[in-house]
Amino acid sequence: MRDQPATSSGGTFTLGDRDLALATDLYQLTMAAVYAELEPMPASTFELFVRRLPASRNFLVLGGLEQALAALEALRFDGEQLAYLRSLPPLRGVSTAFFDRLAAFRFSGEVWAMPEGTVFFAQEPVLRVTAPLLEAQLVETLLLSIVNFQTTIASKAARVRLAAGDAVGLAEFGGRRAHGPQAAAWAARAAYLGGFDSTSNVLAGQRLGIPVVGTMAHSFVMAFADEEQAFERYLDTFPEHAILLVDTYDTLEGVRHALALGRPFAGVRLDSGDLAALARETRRLLDAGGRPEARIFASGDLDEWKIAALRAAGAPIDAFGVGTQLSTSADAPYLGGIYKLVEIEAGGRALPKFKASAGKATYPGKKQVVREMSAGRMARDRVVPAAGQEGGLLRPVLRAGRRLRAEPLAGARAHCRAELARLPEPLRQLDPAEPYAVEVDPALEELLNEERQRLLTP
Amino acid sequence: MRDQPATSSGGTFTLGDRDLALATDLYQLTMAAVYAELEPMPASTFELFVRRLPASRNFLVLGGLEQALAALEALRFDGEQLAYLRSLPPLRGVSTAFFDRLAAFRFSGEVWAMPEGTVFFAQEPVLRVTAPLLEAQLVETLLLSIVNFQTTIASKAARVRLAAGDAVGLAEFGGRRAHGPQAAAWAARAAYLGGFDSTSNVLAGQRLGIPVVGTMAHSFVMAFADEEQAFERYLDTFPEHAILLVDTYDTLEGVRHALALGRPFAGVRLDSGDLAALARETRRLLDAGGRPEARIFASGDLDEWKIAALRAAGAPIDAFGVGTQLSTSADAPYLGGIYKLVEIEAGGRALPKFKASAGKATYPGKKQVVREMSAGRMARDRVVPAAGQEGGLLRPVLRAGRRLRAEPLAGARAHCRAELARLPEPLRQLDPAEPYAVEVDPALEELLNEERQRLLTP
Repeated sequence: MRDQPATSSGGTFTLGDRDLALATDLYQLTMAAVYAELEPMPASTFELFVRRLPASRNFLVLGGLEQALAALEALRFDGEQLAYLRSLPPLRGVSTAFFDRLAAFRFSGEVWAMPEGTVFFAQEPVLRVTAPLLEAQLVETLLLSIVNFQTTIASKAARVRLAAGDAVGLAEFGGRRAHGPQAAAWAARAAYLGGFDSTSNVLAGQRLGIPVVGTMAHSFVMAFADEEQAFERYLDTFPEHAILLVDTYDTLEGVRHALALGRPFAGVRLDSGDLAALARETRRLLDAGGRPEARIFASGDLDEWKIAALRAAGAPIDAFGVGTQLSTSADAPYLGGIYKLVEIEAGGRALPKFKASAGKATYPGKKQVVREMSAGRMARDRVVPAAGQEGGLLRPVLRAGRRLRAEPLAGARAHCRAELARLPEPLRQLDPAEPYAVEVDPALEELLNEERQRLLTP
Repeated sequence: MRDQPATSSGGTFTLGDRDLALATDLYQLTMAAVYAELEPMPASTFELFVRRLPASRNFLVLGGLEQALAALEALRFDGEQLAYLRSLPPLRGVSTAFFDRLAAFRFSGEVWAMPEGTVFFAQEPVLRVTAPLLEAQLVETLLLSIVNFQTTIASKAARVRLAAGDAVGLAEFGGRRAHGPQAAAWAARAAYLGGFDSTSNVLAGQRLGIPVVGTMAHSFVMAFADEEQAFERYLDTFPEHAILLVDTYDTLEGVRHALALGRPFAGVRLDSGDLAALARETRRLLDAGGRPEARIFASGDLDEWKIAALRAAGAPIDAFGVGTQLSTSADAPYLGGIYKLVEIEAGGRALPKFKASAGKATYPGKKQVVREMSAGRMARDRVVPAAGQEGGLLRPVLRAGRRLRAEPLAGARAHCRAELARLPEPLRQLDPAEPYAVEVDPALEELLNEERQRLLTP
């Protein structure tokens, strides 16, 4: 490609279903070109997991499964994409048969996964793909980019929900700081999955049915001659739904201006200053002003820690809006989810596979996760060889390339809520806790050691 | 929307041009509904800027301008979107005239902006929108989500380039940890803009003409009986382009296996361990083995700091692959770019506007940025009233809703490179430097004080 310099600026460069096939790393395609020449093509199994939790996380919530499976079903290469691939220097010399194979590509494999919204921990496979080697490898980047991100945000959202308690409202509105307009919509989905009630993102509302909410911006207040006029005009248009932003000039003056209109309004939003003190004084003013039904909505660079502090201080806040810190998971902005080959089937025999790189060893063979409960709470997880383990957390979700069922987002969200209730109490706290017990089955340790030995003594 | 629970899981939920109109916060639409009733509709000016640089940044590189402008040109509401909006509880009672207005929506305003790839600092407007109030407000979320993200990544990429120097290759390959498949492609674009040479992201290659590169994964090596067989099969398919990943089992053994094939190869990739020591020993083995032309490619959770250390240690590495830390800008994962109303034109008079919220004051009126140079380096910037300042960094880029020109990505990248060369030396270092001098014109300070006075003494 070096002979084809970047001349396009990309326009809006949106990404539709048909682009999914190229939303990948080039090496997936060069490796596929080699695999295409294997006769017979071996079957393979890859597992998606994280080696370690981010330092500031006691647990993770699986997100993005639905999009990952839909992408597997939708993956196709069109003529334009194939022409582009053929033009790339490394692929130019590759046989026509390979491109014919891509032209006919359909993901034909099997996927097992934990249900979306499940709480999981380090070393636990959350998704397992079994497919012809070319196919299983080709989908790596796409699966990781979807699952890593939504898991990141769902996990952050769950922490915010645990900090806020069940009684207060939580709205996501971090779209303007998310990693592009598309990530904004995905973040809204994952936040809802993790326990938020609503989002300001209209696209997420339209496409996913997530409740959308909105108040007003400072610029709205500034656009009028004064605050009272701004509030009045907003109430004229939205007599039942107006949440008035009161801090553009002076928060408590803003509350007084809202009351001075002598009309009911849904609530006020505080977006700056000492929120606990301002919320208390605002509540007092609203009650004294005959608006006990008006709700107090708070925002302003909030995260789970600030919300916990406001709750602990007894601030009378009915709902929180959380933006940047949620939509970018700013304290843990990425997840190191990986997708590793664990088994190859060749000549009718399953060969367990592992990696021995310094500090990056992986356990060989297909695995399952078994969760032990005690008094309604998670007590211990075991990572065990998959054979004969039908009762584990991983369940079949896609067979012969087709999803077995589609899980509504509301269902995954309810599952997540139930999962959070089953977390041991220390893991529900914001501070780092003693890690949850995940035991790797001795049989897997033995297998790893055997394989290592076999490699070292050829 | 609470009466319409989330029943859809969203499928692949891709986002095409037609979705741009709803890639916004609901309040932009509720405010628009109020503005639609103003007679006459006032003209307004908004400016996009950051209040503060992230702690770990000495400068920022403007990214995403091209997509932001393309989005303004493409923004339309279709029937399905309008039907959805009408169904939302707050908008249900709004007059039909408002939805007719949205149905006919075209962005008709004017935009001034710094060229993409320009270095900028806190308090400097980088983009200025003048349009009827409804239009200028409506595009806020979309502009911010595009510009904030690409600026974040371009700025990180520029730091990596400064650390690496001009002689070594830099490839972006953080797609799997980016915030979704779409953010992955945007990150590839912004990394290229900021000084990277290539990406592993195939979609960015196809759509933007960015050079794409790829090596092989550990799973590829593991899929064969042994490392030598894996290398051999790869070389059979890619005799001229093979970069062999040598650390799956033991890095230097891997290099020996590559040499033992007795065939030329393009290079090797080191992905773990002590990269400086391994690179030196690898170089020695390659030279002694008759492959002085084989290049050494290094990767493995690299960032600008690690690359600077490897360069300082004289590690013989020809090219670096940078993933997660770049594609998520992990040390500064978001940018607090904001979009503020600075002027309203009503009754033929331009009224400067500002915000006085605690710690969040903004300067009123249209502004321009003038850069003073000294001996070829940036010496001082001044933020001045825009009137009569044609020679500043902000230039007209869109008029009456149409772009004046499209800037090829390669041109913006070259501009960024020239900008980095003009940075004062301390700002080119990775450590936090004394902030660059940005002086707000006394006339703007006076205007702010006057407006504050006017507000406090009605």
